[in-house]
Amino acid sequence: MSADKIPDIIIGRLPIYLRALQRLADSGEQTTSSQELGELVGISAAQIRKDISQFGEFGKQGTGYSIPFLMEKLRDILKVDRVWEVVIVGMGDIGHALAHYNGFNNRGFHVNMVFDNDPKKVGHKVGDFEVLDAAGMIEKIKGSRIKIAMLCVPATSAQDAADHLVKAGIKAILNYAPISINVPHDVKVQYIDPVTHLQRMTYYL
Amino acid sequence: MSADKIPDIIIGRLPIYLRALQRLADSGEQTTSSQELGELVGISAAQIRKDISQFGEFGKQGTGYSIPFLMEKLRDILKVDRVWEVVIVGMGDIGHALAHYNGFNNRGFHVNMVFDNDPKKVGHKVGDFEVLDAAGMIEKIKGSRIKIAMLCVPATSAQDAADHLVKAGIKAILNYAPISINVPHDVKVQYIDPVTHLQRMTYYL
Repeated sequence: MSADKIPDIIIGRLPIYLRALQRLADSGEQTTSSQELGELVGISAAQIRKDISQFGEFGKQGTGYSIPFLMEKLRDILKVDRVWEVVIVGMGDIGHALAHYNGFNNRGFHVNMVFDNDPKKVGHKVGDFEVLDAAGMIEKIKGSRIKIAMLCVPATSAQDAADHLVKAGIKAILNYAPISINVPHDVKVQYIDPVTHLQRMTYYL
Repeated sequence: MSADKIPDIIIGRLPIYLRALQRLADSGEQTTSSQELGELVGISAAQIRKDISQFGEFGKQGTGYSIPFLMEKLRDILKVDRVWEVVIVGMGDIGHALAHYNGFNNRGFHVNMVFDNDPKKVGHKVGDFEVLDAAGMIEKIKGSRIKIAMLCVPATSAQDAADHLVKAGIKAILNYAPISINVPHDVKVQYIDPVTHLQRMTYYL
């Protein structure tokens, strides 16, 4: 199995499957079927079987999937069988919400540092974190070998901040700023913009 | 042009194009090309031409696209040539951030009401909004004819809240709760879960 061969759209569904499996595990289930999983995530059983079979034979005809086994495999494939340290850049409302969010920890991520360039925020606490000065961001991230950032600055600062993150060695950016950013090919970007998600739905209304 | 015929993945890219066109318009540009747009959004010029041509002939060989004209067409296609009223359900950190967010207004959306079921929050102000009691949510939404909700409650309450929203006549839910929800076929759901976005990137690291 090679990273180049699996379509990105399939990779995008694996975290959804993993999240649903975690939910089943939390409620004490040991096995599941592609039908049950499909009902939980709103994807057809056939599609789920096809997606999962890209990576090997993880289920058995008739008995379905072992939940702990399939979770282990998906975590391994998605590389969240470890904990990734993450930085947050921009301590506005969204940065605050992410700094307080307790949903990262058992899903493979841990917020390590938070940055802002506002002197009124630098040095103050947000949740468990002291807000660090963005002026020293490149050195701090380089020294820490952190590879993942959540970018929560205004649209006007997003490209500049992204350039700094790339210089610091960041290889994956979750961009909350409502603007597309340009990064080198070896840096991954995912976007979270509520308006683009809303506009995608109004088309159908 | 029929809603059934255009693949959802194309519809999903139109808001990205619209956002980039707005940016060009804000900086005073009048025309653009699929090349320029492609560089802004990280999508190939050929793909952009193909996507846009699904809806008609909006550009001219050699002169490219008129930005105001293409924006008007995209707004029309996405039905954001009007303002959609939206409710927020759940006034935790994310609900707060959304209630304060000023990026909805000129992109087709306006927050109309915010709800929570916590007596400590109900009746208090969040930004411009008085937090309304979720117990009266169905009637209030029904009376208002609002069709869109942003769901920001904990995972454990999300399905229950979604059921209430469906009963209230909501047809599009932007779900921030980290769990898949089941809704009737005529209700659209989009998901914002930072962890699934992060996991989609770690695969490539």
